[in-house]
Amino acid sequence: MTRWKLTIEYSGTGFSGWQRQDGVSTIQAAIENAITKFCGQDIPIHAAGRTDAGVHAKGQIAHFDLDYGDRSITGFELAKAINAHLLPQPIAILKAENVHPEFHARFDAQNKLYRYRILQRPAMSALEKNRMWHIRHRLNLEAMQDSARHLLGHHDFTTFRDSQCQAKSSLRTLDSLNITSKPYDDSDGLEIHIEAQAQSFLHHQVRNMVGSLSLVGLGKWSPQDMKTALDAKDRKAGGPTAPATGLYLVRIDYPNTNAAEHKI
Amino acid sequence: MTRWKLTIEYSGTGFSGWQRQDGVSTIQAAIENAITKFCGQDIPIHAAGRTDAGVHAKGQIAHFDLDYGDRSITGFELAKAINAHLLPQPIAILKAENVHPEFHARFDAQNKLYRYRILQRPAMSALEKNRMWHIRHRLNLEAMQDSARHLLGHHDFTTFRDSQCQAKSSLRTLDSLNITSKPYDDSDGLEIHIEAQAQSFLHHQVRNMVGSLSLVGLGKWSPQDMKTALDAKDRKAGGPTAPATGLYLVRIDYPNTNAAEHKI
Repeated sequence: MTRWKLTIEYSGTGFSGWQRQDGVSTIQAAIENAITKFCGQDIPIHAAGRTDAGVHAKGQIAHFDLDYGDRSITGFELAKAINAHLLPQPIAILKAENVHPEFHARFDAQNKLYRYRILQRPAMSALEKNRMWHIRHRLNLEAMQDSARHLLGHHDFTTFRDSQCQAKSSLRTLDSLNITSKPYDDSDGLEIHIEAQAQSFLHHQVRNMVGSLSLVGLGKWSPQDMKTALDAKDRKAGGPTAPATGLYLVRIDYPNTNAAEHKI
Repeated sequence: MTRWKLTIEYSGTGFSGWQRQDGVSTIQAAIENAITKFCGQDIPIHAAGRTDAGVHAKGQIAHFDLDYGDRSITGFELAKAINAHLLPQPIAILKAENVHPEFHARFDAQNKLYRYRILQRPAMSALEKNRMWHIRHRLNLEAMQDSARHLLGHHDFTTFRDSQCQAKSSLRTLDSLNITSKPYDDSDGLEIHIEAQAQSFLHHQVRNMVGSLSLVGLGKWSPQDMKTALDAKDRKAGGPTAPATGLYLVRIDYPNTNAAEHKI
């Protein structure tokens, strides 16, 4: 029996999120079905965290156990085999690594990095539809960054937590929340990135923080209003939930796994 | 009567190229139909050049004449109105500018910039399917750049010209052909850009040059083989035609148009 760690890229568009559910297409089900096609066994995979419908990943992590009998397989071969069975779905195994049998994608995660992409320009994106949140108006990035500092550190994030969130505690520690921008095209288009890092997030926390940041960017909130909203500990005091389409689970960090890496 | 210059972004995926043809979806037809819906008139638009099925644009240029009666309209309003009628098609007017009545998108073009995007990694792209050419093997970028210099300048490009090309002359002047790369993700992925500039190109010239460059990158050709191929003046001496999916018409430069710009 070998425990494998998978690094996974996917487009969330058209999927009902990560978690397997009856009657709908999910990322987890697509990968589990591909593994079954490859090895003939039904094997559950365990992700570091669920992503919602429409949310993308550049570095989701999951683990599973494979009993491949006496045969040996490298990470390169395993990723290639699963990818072959995933086609033409927009899901790709970027890396498969043979890890310690105690490795756990969810419990061992030390840090998660989410990126939220906003396209600021008058025209919608023709080339990256469903890959960014399109905002027509100019955002005040300085005010947004100024308001973001109120969210850094250890807080009760009830204001930015979905009412369906099942976490026992609403306390989380936000390690960074940075806003950067770069030109998107030759005609004044701007691509804005909001990057958030923490060991873990509440349900919809990033999208709810981005929604409130957008109010600051649009001048509807002052930077100080962000602190007022946080202190209210009430979802109704927060801004809107930003669309899933702009959110990417970029990277998850773990302690050294003490195992040979088999990059594909 | 006002002559308008449009800067257009589009995804070529699912379209039979730029040029209007009976019975198939084309970019030109989509934009002309949107203009008709906006103003009630059938008005032909004239592009700087056609793009083939599957080829994308970040800066295609076209012009058309609009008689809007006594009413006035700004470029911002015109672009917004056409975009509203283009939805949900992946075509966006980035800018509409009121230009001199003699301006001609094709005849006045001084320089065209094409970019070809290659994704070099084992796994296909989940997030940018149909936006890049996926190559699994490592390419020797230095050898590719070395071979590219043989194509610079004024040459007979018959080797890199499609057999259906209707241009009278196969002589063209290639002003630049640069190969650059940047990391694509956290797991050894590399995004390679091949950028080509010239006043004009032959049919399939960029894709045929890229196909030959890929042979150099894979070690199947030496850099010197590029010169041999060019000198043969025979399409059969050239490499394969790279897929349309990686090609972008990025920018077209014109002399100063001596007209106020109305950026959307």
